[in-house]
Amino acid sequence: MRFFSDNAAPVHPKVMEAIAAANRLDTAYDGDEWSQRLDGAFSDLFGTEVRGFWATTGTAANCLALAALCPPYRSILCHKDAHIEVDEAGAPGFFTGGAKLVLLGGEGAKVTVEAAATACDLIRKDVHQVQPAALSVTNATESGLVYRAAEMAALGQFARERRLDFHLDGARIANAVASTGDSLADLTWRAGVDAMSFGFVKNGGMNAEALIIFRPELADEIAVRRKRAGHLLSKGRFLAAQILALLEDGLWLDNARAANAAAQTLATAAPQRLVHPVEANEVFVRVSAAEADSLRDQGFDFYEWGPGEIRFVTSWDSQGEGVELLAAALARL
Amino acid sequence: MRFFSDNAAPVHPKVMEAIAAANRLDTAYDGDEWSQRLDGAFSDLFGTEVRGFWATTGTAANCLALAALCPPYRSILCHKDAHIEVDEAGAPGFFTGGAKLVLLGGEGAKVTVEAAATACDLIRKDVHQVQPAALSVTNATESGLVYRAAEMAALGQFARERRLDFHLDGARIANAVASTGDSLADLTWRAGVDAMSFGFVKNGGMNAEALIIFRPELADEIAVRRKRAGHLLSKGRFLAAQILALLEDGLWLDNARAANAAAQTLATAAPQRLVHPVEANEVFVRVSAAEADSLRDQGFDFYEWGPGEIRFVTSWDSQGEGVELLAAALARL
Amino acid sequence: MRFFSDNAAPVHPKVMEAIAAANRLDTAYDGDEWSQRLDGAFSDLFGTEVRGFWATTGTAANCLALAALCPPYRSILCHKDAHIEVDEAGAPGFFTGGAKLVLLGGEGAKVTVEAAATACDLIRKDVHQVQPAALSVTNATESGLVYRAAEMAALGQFARERRLDFHLDGARIANAVASTGDSLADLTWRAGVDAMSFGFVKNGGMNAEALIIFRPELADEIAVRRKRAGHLLSKGRFLAAQILALLEDGLWLDNARAANAAAQTLATAAPQRLVHPVEANEVFVRVSAAEADSLRDQGFDFYEWGPGEIRFVTSWDSQGEGVELLAAALARL
Amino acid sequence: MRFFSDNAAPVHPKVMEAIAAANRLDTAYDGDEWSQRLDGAFSDLFGTEVRGFWATTGTAANCLALAALCPPYRSILCHKDAHIEVDEAGAPGFFTGGAKLVLLGGEGAKVTVEAAATACDLIRKDVHQVQPAALSVTNATESGLVYRAAEMAALGQFARERRLDFHLDGARIANAVASTGDSLADLTWRAGVDAMSFGFVKNGGMNAEALIIFRPELADEIAVRRKRAGHLLSKGRFLAAQILALLEDGLWLDNARAANAAAQTLATAAPQRLVHPVEANEVFVRVSAAEADSLRDQGFDFYEWGPGEIRFVTSWDSQGEGVELLAAALARL
Repeated sequence: MRFFSDNAAPVHPKVMEAIAAANRLDTAYDGDEWSQRLDGAFSDLFGTEVRGFWATTGTAANCLALAALCPPYRSILCHKDAHIEVDEAGAPGFFTGGAKLVLLGGEGAKVTVEAAATACDLIRKDVHQVQPAALSVTNATESGLVYRAAEMAALGQFARERRLDFHLDGARIANAVASTGDSLADLTWRAGVDAMSFGFVKNGGMNAEALIIFRPELADEIAVRRKRAGHLLSKGRFLAAQILALLEDGLWLDNARAANAAAQTLATAAPQRLVHPVEANEVFVRVSAAEADSLRDQGFDFYEWGPGEIRFVTSWDSQGEGVELLAAALARL
Repeated sequence: MRFFSDNAAPVHPKVMEAIAAANRLDTAYDGDEWSQRLDGAFSDLFGTEVRGFWATTGTAANCLALAALCPPYRSILCHKDAHIEVDEAGAPGFFTGGAKLVLLGGEGAKVTVEAAATACDLIRKDVHQVQPAALSVTNATESGLVYRAAEMAALGQFARERRLDFHLDGARIANAVASTGDSLADLTWRAGVDAMSFGFVKNGGMNAEALIIFRPELADEIAVRRKRAGHLLSKGRFLAAQILALLEDGLWLDNARAANAAAQTLATAAPQRLVHPVEANEVFVRVSAAEADSLRDQGFDFYEWGPGEIRFVTSWDSQGEGVELLAAALARL
Repeated sequence: MRFFSDNAAPVHPKVMEAIAAANRLDTAYDGDEWSQRLDGAFSDLFGTEVRGFWATTGTAANCLALAALCPPYRSILCHKDAHIEVDEAGAPGFFTGGAKLVLLGGEGAKVTVEAAATACDLIRKDVHQVQPAALSVTNATESGLVYRAAEMAALGQFARERRLDFHLDGARIANAVASTGDSLADLTWRAGVDAMSFGFVKNGGMNAEALIIFRPELADEIAVRRKRAGHLLSKGRFLAAQILALLEDGLWLDNARAANAAAQTLATAAPQRLVHPVEANEVFVRVSAAEADSLRDQGFDFYEWGPGEIRFVTSWDSQGEGVELLAAALARL
Repeated sequence: MRFFSDNAAPVHPKVMEAIAAANRLDTAYDGDEWSQRLDGAFSDLFGTEVRGFWATTGTAANCLALAALCPPYRSILCHKDAHIEVDEAGAPGFFTGGAKLVLLGGEGAKVTVEAAATACDLIRKDVHQVQPAALSVTNATESGLVYRAAEMAALGQFARERRLDFHLDGARIANAVASTGDSLADLTWRAGVDAMSFGFVKNGGMNAEALIIFRPELADEIAVRRKRAGHLLSKGRFLAAQILALLEDGLWLDNARAANAAAQTLATAAPQRLVHPVEANEVFVRVSAAEADSLRDQGFDFYEWGPGEIRFVTSWDSQGEGVELLAAALARL
């Protein structure tokens, strides 16, 4: 029973159906009828006019946005555990042409206004030091915590005051919405977010993520950058169809709720062992090496996440027996 | 009836089946069982040990290879009509970090040893001028011509003599194999090709192309570059499965033969109007503006390809009525 | 007697004096009193408010400007013989982060509105093709011709119509002013030039060139890019002092007039052998191999500039005996 | 009396003489007789065959070296206070094409084997995390401490074991040699250093630094990168002549000794206030705001270096009255 990551889960049946239904000849690239519906579908979802691009990875979606927000000679503030820093092979440096990431501390991979302000204050305002251009946060975070609307609003206000653009890595934004009960709008553009990735692959999709732009004037540049980075697929309809299927009838939110619920089942089983509060679909547990081995012997797969710490990730299909068995095993530890 | 491009054609049913069959949880990225079979499958196909990576676009496959073959401060020789020059939004400059393309002339978008040699000879061997590092050709070419094995061998020998690496844009390599009857090996590594893209999307796939490396020592670097460029999808099994389906029982070659045959049907209908000999699946036809309009009025879609010139591209499913109708319409002109 | 290039000539005595006079402790980088006077001195010279930066090479001055004018995903139109294309080791690609140069033909390395317009018209307005962002010309050109004010104005108008920024490589702008009698203002900002390099090293300086910005809003970015490229010298006063010395009492123009006059002496000696009209300080002469050898045997140094063509460059100190001897030798051919 | 930085000090008279003596026409770029003597002069100095390039800034010298040692997709380990991280406007990211700096802690801006090893051990060996390619240290450090030969050897051994290249920022290597009494060879190539900058501008030069390559096979690439970055000056003889003058009769070492001695005079005056041991030519002193104001009122210029901390830098000409006056003022605090 695999709890490595939600990024390896199966594709939701409705997404598979949508892909099959898109299998007829149409205009190439993003000229097809499905791709042409994305702007509208996302504008409806967010309750404001946005531009929505498909992309095949969160790395691409995040870094195309960052390249539009940060010139090569400036920097992006982010948490030291942020995916763009830790797990994207230096992609921000590649896409931006050499911009720096300025790393912030903070519990649970959460950026605070205080940490960001301190980092900015340490930067001399001269040509010798790299000046910040953007702030990037991840919701839910890499530690499975969420930012609530008020926290996002405070970060957005800070960004505005410092003249920083505001980027959101939304690989698990669905889980954050499901967890907080806050609206997508309040968690994003109303808080001042300029651009974000919107994760679908971890949430029932096959290979379609989205890049959402809240400042339409950036869209043309991003379209060119997407092509230039080799991310303009010729049969884009198969990506757009996945996204539309997940947006329909709130499937994206149902899937996230299911994943979060499974995580809560695990959290409830071993509350005293949790490294972080479980607010989304990731569960970090303190175990001894022997306990980890025992769990593996019982057939559970998971990642070591540092000394004495393991990580379980639940996904849209983590329901029923597997989760119950793992919860029981955790309770027995 | 659309003859815009093979890159918009439907996905072959066997590929759709393979995608559906891959829809179970497996290891993320390229750790799944399908992706793990690619090296072996391609090594069997080419008759030598190769490394095969999936990628979602030909631009990515080509430019990841070029970045490994050409440092930022050198150049790549290619035809002035090459896709990497004309239609990839400057992607080679992005992936290589600023390398130049040195543009060669030549009939039918074909590079000749003479043109390449002349271009090299004009470059002074000093630090002021950009020194060439690689030669890139496309087979079949952007004008629908093919290089035969002997031509590739001559280009490869030239590259070796000039200490240039040799890259092949194989977006339509299947059509070239089908057309020439030469073996994949003779058209690639036996001729000295170091790395190539192998097109599947235009040939029945959905969104899986391949990058083939004939020098295994480059594979680790390319794996990192692929991740860094946002091209390491988390559910890679859905790409690998497409490729494996197309390789099985020679489906890739059957599809290319079907596309080529359809092109021949068109070519035969209007032999005196052909801009280039039809050797693969592209047909360039001389027409007046009135004739082009007339064809459109009859329901045929195609691109203008310069003054008085239009292009039809056939694909694996261009069979039966549509092609016959177009052939008849061309004959009537 | 060396006629290789004006870039190897001695430094003018007044420049040497100015350097010596600057040898006292002052603020580092460009905070010193000499550097602080550059904006004012250049604004006076051009008759409008400009920002003037020192740089140590024309390559740096040109490419810092181009990086500010052209994003990585767009292109710069220039002549195929332009120094930025031919003799800067791909520096524009490095500084811009991968922008392309689109190469234009034209007699005497001169860009015409027609050639530039044709090149633009060939570029499809879509994401697949690289869209132009800037036009770059060199005055005097690499063939020793000059653009007059009216020509610059026409090019500037074209640039404006096409929404292109306008860059001037002014490595020999002094020679162009001396030759045309047109004002610096008419040859630059009144014609719509946005940024330019202003050559001093070829004109009596030691290692100080200037980068002139006619759009002050670009100055901050360029200051950062200069530092980031390693071009912010810590004792900048020694560069600024050179420039101020050359600007004082019009020494820059006197030097250029001297160089141009020497070139005219040579041109007059062999009018029927000239490859190009001699309008500045470069003289291209048709000779046989035997004639070239004979000139070398007489002690004249020069570059071969293609088959049957040699180049002489005169400089501010090319006066008196050397030039007369060469003129006599050319007349004797 | 200015103690801001040694980078603003006057030029040594012998350097001025050498510049004046170089003022005759010679071959351009680095083809002149002075530049041609650099490899030999540095090889003699280091006691091994090296390649020596002039450059106009330490940023350029460091970053050209780093670009040759670290591909765009890997990282460089350095101290978090390193000049390449803190004060070069992100130049390493620009020159390498996006490589990362991995920041290490450590007293007095010194890198320890332990800190470097810990940082390496935290990096997973997969494509998701950026793998280190090089280690960079600064000697003397940004806090005015020095690495002795044994420390350099230990760092070099660590680098070798981890297959890292070893870069030395030698902006003040002269001060380190003067301070430690260790040989240049022991502090560099015998310890495994692959490439280094050698500072001259802070040590009596005008605008010539050197880049020393201990692996000759890298020299051609670096020569091209230097040109491409706009750092190949056309009258390079004026840079080479400065370096040769400073190497002659050990002037570089005499100058460093004078600067170090002046620093010792200051250190001795206020030993209990020193933030770091004074081992080179930088003196960091703890003062209250009122004390800092008092020093300024007495005519001393210096930088604030954090709360309650000020920095004095001495240089080759910091002798006599100024230093004595400052020492007395410090003693009086």
